[in-house]
Amino acid sequence: MKTVVIHGSTRINGNTEYLTYQAVPKDKGTHIYLRDHNIHPIVDQRHAEEGFDKINDDLKDLIDIILEHDIILFSTPIYWYSMSGPMKIFIDRWSQILRDPEYPHFREELRKKKVYLIAVGGDKPSIKGIPLVQQFNYICQFYDMSFEGYVVGRASKPGQIVHDKRALKQASLLFDT
Amino acid sequence: MKTVVIHGSTRINGNTEYLTYQAVPKDKGTHIYLRDHNIHPIVDQRHAEEGFDKINDDLKDLIDIILEHDIILFSTPIYWYSMSGPMKIFIDRWSQILRDPEYPHFREELRKKKVYLIAVGGDKPSIKGIPLVQQFNYICQFYDMSFEGYVVGRASKPGQIVHDKRALKQASLLFDT
Amino acid sequence: MKTVVIHGSTRINGNTEYLTYQAVPKDKGTHIYLRDHNIHPIVDQRHAEEGFDKINDDLKDLIDIILEHDIILFSTPIYWYSMSGPMKIFIDRWSQILRDPEYPHFREELRKKKVYLIAVGGDKPSIKGIPLVQQFNYICQFYDMSFEGYVVGRASKPGQIVHDKRALKQASLLFDT
Amino acid sequence: MKTVVIHGSTRINGNTEYLTYQAVPKDKGTHIYLRDHNIHPIVDQRHAEEGFDKINDDLKDLIDIILEHDIILFSTPIYWYSMSGPMKIFIDRWSQILRDPEYPHFREELRKKKVYLIAVGGDKPSIKGIPLVQQFNYICQFYDMSFEGYVVGRASKPGQIVHDKRALKQASLLFDT
Repeated sequence: MKTVVIHGSTRINGNTEYLTYQAVPKDKGTHIYLRDHNIHPIVDQRHAEEGFDKINDDLKDLIDIILEHDIILFSTPIYWYSMSGPMKIFIDRWSQILRDPEYPHFREELRKKKVYLIAVGGDKPSIKGIPLVQQFNYICQFYDMSFEGYVVGRASKPGQIVHDKRALKQASLLFDT
Repeated sequence: MKTVVIHGSTRINGNTEYLTYQAVPKDKGTHIYLRDHNIHPIVDQRHAEEGFDKINDDLKDLIDIILEHDIILFSTPIYWYSMSGPMKIFIDRWSQILRDPEYPHFREELRKKKVYLIAVGGDKPSIKGIPLVQQFNYICQFYDMSFEGYVVGRASKPGQIVHDKRALKQASLLFDT
Repeated sequence: MKTVVIHGSTRINGNTEYLTYQAVPKDKGTHIYLRDHNIHPIVDQRHAEEGFDKINDDLKDLIDIILEHDIILFSTPIYWYSMSGPMKIFIDRWSQILRDPEYPHFREELRKKKVYLIAVGGDKPSIKGIPLVQQFNYICQFYDMSFEGYVVGRASKPGQIVHDKRALKQASLLFDT
Repeated sequence: MKTVVIHGSTRINGNTEYLTYQAVPKDKGTHIYLRDHNIHPIVDQRHAEEGFDKINDDLKDLIDIILEHDIILFSTPIYWYSMSGPMKIFIDRWSQILRDPEYPHFREELRKKKVYLIAVGGDKPSIKGIPLVQQFNYICQFYDMSFEGYVVGRASKPGQIVHDKRALKQASLLFDT
């Protein structure tokens, strides 16, 4: 089972990354840091006559990497009770891949993936992070991916995540069951 | 009471806009179309020594307009069970305004606002749009803004919203109670 | 299409009933008032060797009535952010019907039903009633019933529901789309 | 810190109890098993002229026990995506205590409590148990009690909970942070 981690954090070595490394150490699995890639926001042209404009950015490279793996771990700080902007932009663009003739088997491929989520927030994340968890669940449902588990950690200031013992433990057990 | 509508749609005259105009006609209130503005995604520098880098985009112009109004209506298509990317990027950047010395009264000002939400989605939005509603509720709680009401409409293809009679009616009654 | 309304309110002519009658007038459809019936709480004997004990109460009479209808409208006041106790007790007992040899086609029959929900609460029900809506959605998913719509009204003191114009309107349009 | 566990399970030694004992062993803390007590469902007489009828059951005995403790752990199997009927009936009746002249300091007393939740379900509880968690959160908000943490375990058949290693671990760490 090959694992790819999609990091949505805009800060290097932040709390979310720290928690994520408890599940997938830095030197294991494939780590994609969205902040290091250029991804344009979607323009909804699903119903445009000519379809979507071609966009010259890193989207397809990242999609190709993801499709080579069995497990996708989304790792995002909680920004305003949802995933980070860069992660949202990235996922929004999957709508475009869905209609791209170069990816005729996109949904079929995703259906085989197992998905995990790690999210970290500062404002009562075990409660206020729930909508984010539900969103990922719906995204998984849409693609018929199996949403296997999630960990929500609590941290605001740099380094604070080390105090959330429960989350660290959960992350280290993420793939266990 | 002055109303500003923040449109998160990336498509002109789409279903979300149509539904929104039932609540605030195009020639009433102030309409901001985020797609016509340049807003950069946030880089989380809350904890950087020098704070946030200055960014030369339209963020502050839009914030200034919003602060002049009493009612904020967020209008967004539901992309992947959450707000559109452009709206997420815009709201993420409010974190930066919170720490901007030019906006010492930002929170204090927002506390006086009434907030409404109109969202349109194609995949069982009355259920699967719920996390989005909860997010806006938490955002309002954070800023101590009053979340007064929301309408979730159902539409996928262009023009389809006209069939969601319940949503159209609700939108037209949005400010009634 | 025959409609049965299951009233979970413990108070006669309360706000929830008033709102419900906007959708299904008292003299139309079949109205079951759970408070007028004797239903025992479930004892979980799904895994007991002898199965469930026979219970002499009104459960099966009500189930029989429900099965004769096409549309089920659950109508409940929001007690502590969930359905009323009597309604919970009633629904809990469906687990027993699921294993009752007298009802071999229970799930099959329910699969054909359309379900609606009307709920009334006093504490920000449009937000805090959301978990209740989600529960009914999951219940419908379990039985593969179609969850067609819901109205959440706001009222606390007797009669107060008349001021929630939006909810009254929504209730009157409940079966429209 | 004195802990009281309120068990909502209707089955002795079930999965929910097993998971709960990882957090509070049987011989520690105070354990209330609702199934061993007689509690009547509420009749909403909040607005009746004479107020609530006196009811001769175990409600006040249990309330008195709870008020002597600092930590309340609610332990419930997930029945139809919410708490068990007996627990719902019990909590519904708190509305009556709120208006009972014998308990003038009920809310004031509860405000000092820390609350935890342990719930076990068989149908994707990490997702479908979310509304239950949110309900408890709102209940805690209402009484201004501090909702400190929760564990949702997965089990359906007797004994199955031993396989949910993550939940067992979480339960054992419940009071740690």
